[in-house]
Amino acid sequence: MSTFTLAQVAEHDNTSSCWVIIRNKVYDVTDFIFNHPGGPQVIMDYAGQDATAAFVPIHPSDTLDKYLPREKHLGALDEGSTRELRAASRNKGKSRDELRVEEAVKDKPPLGRMINVQDIEASFTSCPPETAKEILPYKAMAYYASAADDSISYSENARAFSRFFFHPRVMKAVSGVDPSTTMLGYKTSIPIYISGSALARLGHPLGEANLTRGAYKSGILQMVSSNSSLSYTQVAGARGSSEQPLFFQLYKHKNDDIAARCIREVEELGYKAIFLTVDALVPSNRELDTRAPHYLEEYENQGKIIHGKSTYKSGDVSILGTAGGLIVNNDLDMTWEKTIPWIRSVTKLPIVVKGIQCVADAVLAVEAGCEGIVLSNHGGRQLDYSLPPMEVLYKIRCERPDVLEKTEVYIDGGVHRGTDVLKALCLGARMVGLGRAFLYAQSAYGEAGVVHLVRILEREIKFAMASLGVRTVDQLAPELVERVDWQPLSPKL
Amino acid sequence: MSTFTLAQVAEHDNTSSCWVIIRNKVYDVTDFIFNHPGGPQVIMDYAGQDATAAFVPIHPSDTLDKYLPREKHLGALDEGSTRELRAASRNKGKSRDELRVEEAVKDKPPLGRMINVQDIEASFTSCPPETAKEILPYKAMAYYASAADDSISYSENARAFSRFFFHPRVMKAVSGVDPSTTMLGYKTSIPIYISGSALARLGHPLGEANLTRGAYKSGILQMVSSNSSLSYTQVAGARGSSEQPLFFQLYKHKNDDIAARCIREVEELGYKAIFLTVDALVPSNRELDTRAPHYLEEYENQGKIIHGKSTYKSGDVSILGTAGGLIVNNDLDMTWEKTIPWIRSVTKLPIVVKGIQCVADAVLAVEAGCEGIVLSNHGGRQLDYSLPPMEVLYKIRCERPDVLEKTEVYIDGGVHRGTDVLKALCLGARMVGLGRAFLYAQSAYGEAGVVHLVRILEREIKFAMASLGVRTVDQLAPELVERVDWQPLSPKL
Amino acid sequence: MSTFTLAQVAEHDNTSSCWVIIRNKVYDVTDFIFNHPGGPQVIMDYAGQDATAAFVPIHPSDTLDKYLPREKHLGALDEGSTRELRAASRNKGKSRDELRVEEAVKDKPPLGRMINVQDIEASFTSCPPETAKEILPYKAMAYYASAADDSISYSENARAFSRFFFHPRVMKAVSGVDPSTTMLGYKTSIPIYISGSALARLGHPLGEANLTRGAYKSGILQMVSSNSSLSYTQVAGARGSSEQPLFFQLYKHKNDDIAARCIREVEELGYKAIFLTVDALVPSNRELDTRAPHYLEEYENQGKIIHGKSTYKSGDVSILGTAGGLIVNNDLDMTWEKTIPWIRSVTKLPIVVKGIQCVADAVLAVEAGCEGIVLSNHGGRQLDYSLPPMEVLYKIRCERPDVLEKTEVYIDGGVHRGTDVLKALCLGARMVGLGRAFLYAQSAYGEAGVVHLVRILEREIKFAMASLGVRTVDQLAPELVERVDWQPLSPKL
Amino acid sequence: MSTFTLAQVAEHDNTSSCWVIIRNKVYDVTDFIFNHPGGPQVIMDYAGQDATAAFVPIHPSDTLDKYLPREKHLGALDEGSTRELRAASRNKGKSRDELRVEEAVKDKPPLGRMINVQDIEASFTSCPPETAKEILPYKAMAYYASAADDSISYSENARAFSRFFFHPRVMKAVSGVDPSTTMLGYKTSIPIYISGSALARLGHPLGEANLTRGAYKSGILQMVSSNSSLSYTQVAGARGSSEQPLFFQLYKHKNDDIAARCIREVEELGYKAIFLTVDALVPSNRELDTRAPHYLEEYENQGKIIHGKSTYKSGDVSILGTAGGLIVNNDLDMTWEKTIPWIRSVTKLPIVVKGIQCVADAVLAVEAGCEGIVLSNHGGRQLDYSLPPMEVLYKIRCERPDVLEKTEVYIDGGVHRGTDVLKALCLGARMVGLGRAFLYAQSAYGEAGVVHLVRILEREIKFAMASLGVRTVDQLAPELVERVDWQPLSPKL
Repeated sequence: MSTFTLAQVAEHDNTSSCWVIIRNKVYDVTDFIFNHPGGPQVIMDYAGQDATAAFVPIHPSDTLDKYLPREKHLGALDEGSTRELRAASRNKGKSRDELRVEEAVKDKPPLGRMINVQDIEASFTSCPPETAKEILPYKAMAYYASAADDSISYSENARAFSRFFFHPRVMKAVSGVDPSTTMLGYKTSIPIYISGSALARLGHPLGEANLTRGAYKSGILQMVSSNSSLSYTQVAGARGSSEQPLFFQLYKHKNDDIAARCIREVEELGYKAIFLTVDALVPSNRELDTRAPHYLEEYENQGKIIHGKSTYKSGDVSILGTAGGLIVNNDLDMTWEKTIPWIRSVTKLPIVVKGIQCVADAVLAVEAGCEGIVLSNHGGRQLDYSLPPMEVLYKIRCERPDVLEKTEVYIDGGVHRGTDVLKALCLGARMVGLGRAFLYAQSAYGEAGVVHLVRILEREIKFAMASLGVRTVDQLAPELVERVDWQPLSPKL
Repeated sequence: MSTFTLAQVAEHDNTSSCWVIIRNKVYDVTDFIFNHPGGPQVIMDYAGQDATAAFVPIHPSDTLDKYLPREKHLGALDEGSTRELRAASRNKGKSRDELRVEEAVKDKPPLGRMINVQDIEASFTSCPPETAKEILPYKAMAYYASAADDSISYSENARAFSRFFFHPRVMKAVSGVDPSTTMLGYKTSIPIYISGSALARLGHPLGEANLTRGAYKSGILQMVSSNSSLSYTQVAGARGSSEQPLFFQLYKHKNDDIAARCIREVEELGYKAIFLTVDALVPSNRELDTRAPHYLEEYENQGKIIHGKSTYKSGDVSILGTAGGLIVNNDLDMTWEKTIPWIRSVTKLPIVVKGIQCVADAVLAVEAGCEGIVLSNHGGRQLDYSLPPMEVLYKIRCERPDVLEKTEVYIDGGVHRGTDVLKALCLGARMVGLGRAFLYAQSAYGEAGVVHLVRILEREIKFAMASLGVRTVDQLAPELVERVDWQPLSPKL
Repeated sequence: MSTFTLAQVAEHDNTSSCWVIIRNKVYDVTDFIFNHPGGPQVIMDYAGQDATAAFVPIHPSDTLDKYLPREKHLGALDEGSTRELRAASRNKGKSRDELRVEEAVKDKPPLGRMINVQDIEASFTSCPPETAKEILPYKAMAYYASAADDSISYSENARAFSRFFFHPRVMKAVSGVDPSTTMLGYKTSIPIYISGSALARLGHPLGEANLTRGAYKSGILQMVSSNSSLSYTQVAGARGSSEQPLFFQLYKHKNDDIAARCIREVEELGYKAIFLTVDALVPSNRELDTRAPHYLEEYENQGKIIHGKSTYKSGDVSILGTAGGLIVNNDLDMTWEKTIPWIRSVTKLPIVVKGIQCVADAVLAVEAGCEGIVLSNHGGRQLDYSLPPMEVLYKIRCERPDVLEKTEVYIDGGVHRGTDVLKALCLGARMVGLGRAFLYAQSAYGEAGVVHLVRILEREIKFAMASLGVRTVDQLAPELVERVDWQPLSPKL
Repeated sequence: MSTFTLAQVAEHDNTSSCWVIIRNKVYDVTDFIFNHPGGPQVIMDYAGQDATAAFVPIHPSDTLDKYLPREKHLGALDEGSTRELRAASRNKGKSRDELRVEEAVKDKPPLGRMINVQDIEASFTSCPPETAKEILPYKAMAYYASAADDSISYSENARAFSRFFFHPRVMKAVSGVDPSTTMLGYKTSIPIYISGSALARLGHPLGEANLTRGAYKSGILQMVSSNSSLSYTQVAGARGSSEQPLFFQLYKHKNDDIAARCIREVEELGYKAIFLTVDALVPSNRELDTRAPHYLEEYENQGKIIHGKSTYKSGDVSILGTAGGLIVNNDLDMTWEKTIPWIRSVTKLPIVVKGIQCVADAVLAVEAGCEGIVLSNHGGRQLDYSLPPMEVLYKIRCERPDVLEKTEVYIDGGVHRGTDVLKALCLGARMVGLGRAFLYAQSAYGEAGVVHLVRILEREIKFAMASLGVRTVDQLAPELVERVDWQPLSPKL
């Protein structure tokens, strides 16, 4: 293998010839600049330089092998250069944000203090015990927490649950309540699954592996994102046993061959279902994410962020934040007629469509033979003013209850309490997904956080089942809930 | 009787042999550790030591006689040890919280300054004149004030009343308004009763006796909790005359024999009805109660409590707060078919089911022949998002008005004004219960507080009756109220 | 006439013999103590002493002549005592509240700065330019501003208007808009009248005379309160011409003879109609009024009022504030069958019933032959949760529109804008009354304030008429307004 | 040409003889004082003096030629006086407000930081990055930002959109989304036009020319206000090409001849349509505008403005703010029968009626043969509680959908997001107008701000179209939106 000096690499710092160093290896990415899902600028920021720190937390370990032709793997840094880089990294002081996170991690409350989902998910400024968001690097927080436009769908997703009240039944035998159920035939200890969400390593070095191991220990199911920051192989390797089921959240590539390769890869790795994502084909407007670099610069300079009053003076804002790059190659022309049969032709795995946002499409999904659907507006991260999934579920229950018989219906977005889960199940949902909550839990507490989160929800679900007078989830019926016609107070989330 | 030294007792500090001292007597509680309704940890905290201060305010005086076999009553401390304990107690400085309460008690406004229920119930931070909560020890406050999950049902219980407006009638003869009525045939001066609520001695040394005497002086009725902190005998003894009726709120023990013994005990003591509690069978999630120890530790260390930002660092949180222990032995498998006939077989007393939360169960209670029902969600302390009782009452009025003819219907939860009471009576309720308000009143002002609270409500009820154009409660009719279709402002509670 | 010394008077300081000095005259009020509408305590506070300062601003000049038998007018103070009193009054320093008011009066903005009704009515703490309430003595403010219980009806009265939106019509000829109309046949420049409200002299030495003169100058109509702080003769004397109509707001005395004397007195004085008040027969719970003495004491001692946290320590609170005393002798047993015919037997004046709060009573008033009704809940000062008059009007329009044809319907409560007035007229009201706004205006600016207030409303009414496409008030039709089904923002009031 | 000295001019300082200096020329305006649309006082403030600074930013350059007879153009200042004026202007210190604006302009964020419409429109105190309002002179801000009465219609215009949620459709081919459409046959790149709004030069010296040039560069359409601060000729001259269409917003003068002259002038200048304004015939109550002089005086004296607590002591407030003067000569007696045919008799241009506020008038406009209508309540600046245009559009869709087929329907008021635009188009609107946003954009960033604003909206519109599953605007259908029956959170605007 050839070796290079830092000086040699530094000459290739332009679009005609662009080299970067990653983990002391040298790569020629000239041809890739304008195909980079995250846009060219972020590459050019490191042209001729070491890009390791920016590259590693976002990209799975097999990225370069998968996407950069072998002949562009030019060789290694020479030993002196490697030493030089290491010294430079040691000498570079820590940023304010890094110091803040170190402090927050030291101070974080014991896991046992987290007694509900909000404790774990709580925002920077809210009480009670904030944890996850404070211990996140600012950019990771901005990526995880941001939602579309004015965050209306994000907020309404949660508020939708607060419009449903219970008709609890008394004098029913409820000893030995059992919240277990199945999803696509796979057993789960409670009707909760981990929804696919990208870039878990932004929050914790073990990333998605925390989710997989936590799911195993608590007996629940996990959907793995196309944009996982561990490779699909690594995630599969993190399973507690080869029997542990994993589902795959597919962003279908516009190139059918690449898409087919991806599906076949996960099928071979033992993934058990394809969750085709259909609500996030184009990059959306997530303003917290977009403004993050400005706010962060301000924080580094002044020690505080004045949200909305940044004095940052540099030029144009790219509206492609961390999120944008992830979905640049999506197939924009999928249809029921073409795409579902095509996936069937590639794999035998069951197909679930994730991102159904109205009754009409739920019906079409059934007609297309899908094994399941996820009522979801992508956690309020894509089209603002998309109806809350809980409202869509309610409409399906009222207008087309047959859908709930003909396919498995899941729901995600805005879930914080065991009572939220039971409201959805009463209306006919089979399972409820949580995304951000698990990201925050693993960021703050790793695998133990994931297990603890499941335990909190399990306790709340079992209590609420007993209080409703039911022993098993199949007894949860529409009569147990009512959509009230007044405006209840919303919980502080 | 044998005597023991402190040193002898101190040797029995583990689960193999566990002795505690209470009021200078020595008890062997080894066999009881894991049957303790409040959990084993709280016993082990005092293993081999004096437990008097923790034991006394929570347990009725007959607890040890009732639940600990005679042979486990080992004997007494010797004289020297008794002196030593007394000296230690004298030398131990007061805690910050004790000092705070002393100060608050000294500063509390004269009773005459309390001009409405909110004055008495007001929270720590709200105006107007706070009283009850400030003078309570933090843990007592946390137990009294806490509600389930996000306190939605707690808040909505009160807000529900604000959706009902009056159609007052004018030009009706209203001199000599008379708000008296009966409940199960017993006369009451106003349509208000004291709802059973546990542990009154947490707030005042005379505890439930204040309620009983206050009820006597003001001519109203009282329901006594299974979890009274005075013994049922003591409460009966506090009556103003042997004619004063008391009702008994039963948490049915899972062991029928124990339950039957309890029912027969109160029947013999002269209690007049059994209020079977059916909405609080399993311990609920009351977060203020759960977090109390942490906040309190913080307060002792730092002089203030930052709600939600405790720096308390110790391990796991038990979600069994003060509340949890009280309902650990409940019968989870009660049914209409089995349980009501069983109670009938044990007692001749009328049976009222407390905790009806939907129309269907109100109908079943009538069919089961109950003499009355209480529409209640346990003051918002059990299942969050249980419908407000006032809404359930409204549904019964609209859907099954026959229920209101066939049995006596009572309601509790969220009542603060005479107008609230009249709204419920207009819709068909016979009586309205208040729990927390009486607890706060007796905590702050003892028996006089209870009487004063009744006087406030009496004045408000009489004024509102006259303003509605009615002279007696049986003239209160559904036509006098309207559920408005807009969102009115809620009173600050 | 006999003369007395201060020492002689001072001996009669008890309920067996009670003398007071008013304007240097001596009165024996022993027999009157327990008949005093304001309660005995306030008399006993001045027993054997000079009561002038407390008596004068509340009682019309003819009170003593009317209600105290001639033989109890004992005589005059001697000259020395008179001088002594005058000196004492000079020497007594001013109270903090008096100094505050002096300062506020000096600083009050020019009248031209008041550009809307809220400017004039604004509360202590609100922007924009506060005027009236700041320049009022605390007790006067508390009496004027207070409302019942939690002030829900008070607030909802105003918010009710905000649910009505316009369907403005364009391309209509609107030059020369004319907002004049008639009430009981009497001409008014705009569809606004001054509603009867008590004790105008609490706010300004000329009291009700300001209202009468202002009404004359601006061409509007006035209803004079039974509890006017000027005598009915004085008010009549303040008219701009003997043609200026005055209406009389009657609180019917329980003694028919006294009531008849009162009606005949005002008829002889030239009053043109009897507005029989039926919604304020019993003293209500106005907490700001009730708490005023405590807050004021606190203010005097500490220079600020902490609303709701008074440290005032004295004994029991009378819930009879300034308001209570005024309605102590009301006839509680009026009926349609008895009372209306009785009034007809006493007077030929038209009868308007003030305080109709539901559709059914509006119908009964028509059937009783009343010439008009006022939809009113007494400005939210009596029964809280009485429906807002605007809602009652809307119900009449929907359910019994014939009422609007058969009698004149007026409305008061919560009116702040010309648009509020037009909404009521569109639904069928003939006139709209304002009470507090005129009290505040005359308190701060005397007669000129009254005229200015009318001008503001006139400008707003004319503008809105033109914008709706109407030239005269009879063109205002139900089709021009809509009750929206969403919750609009309320104006800050 | 005659010349004058300052002293000579100064003698003519009264209503009998009133001269003013503008741009060193001397004019006799005696006969014009009482015909001045902005009222006489503002002229008298400069009688006998130099009025240049007050005159220039409000009046188009051709005002004096158009409205003041040639013989009143008296001549020029002499050279010495001119020098003197220039020196005086140099010596006069800057006002606080001018200094504040200078500072704000220096500090304004780069245009690229503006990532949504709210960024540009944001109010003084709100985050995020305020721009436009801070850089505006206070009076200009007050004129641009003010709305009628309590700003209810202003706020509800925006909130109305928040009640509409989407039913996004998935699995539709959406590559190559195209948001272009036409208005009156003229092509536009996105369904947005610049609505006519007065006095752009208050915010930026190039005023309306920024709008015209920005519209050209971004391919959208512009409606020019009758009250443009550039002359109609100047605006026409600012076009990017003679093909660029301009529309004319007509306030019809009460004198038909003057109105006809105006219409013919713009037709000759190449304007393409007449937008007859019918919702702003009489001066409305815009309180921010009215109070501006007081607040500004306070600011100059004290360095801050306490909104609502001004200590400004001068006399009466004119309720004719900057706005009032502009519409003083409007024709108040327009009718469908008379006015539309009359305009047809004057011009061949298409006629659009701007200011339709209810369904009935939309129908009448169709019957009158109008080529289009604008659903508008003048941005909430005229009659408060006029229904939000989005609600009127919804009513038309429900009650008279034929209107949407028979004429082009536009809508303005409260638009902030691409999703707002699409909601209107789904319901049947053809185009959506924005006024204030463009005023603010050009004030802060000139022509580039206008282009940037269009780019923001274009990005949001294209994203939302793709997310809804549509490729072209004609696919936007009513089924894609739903008016929800709960109260959603409103975005912070």
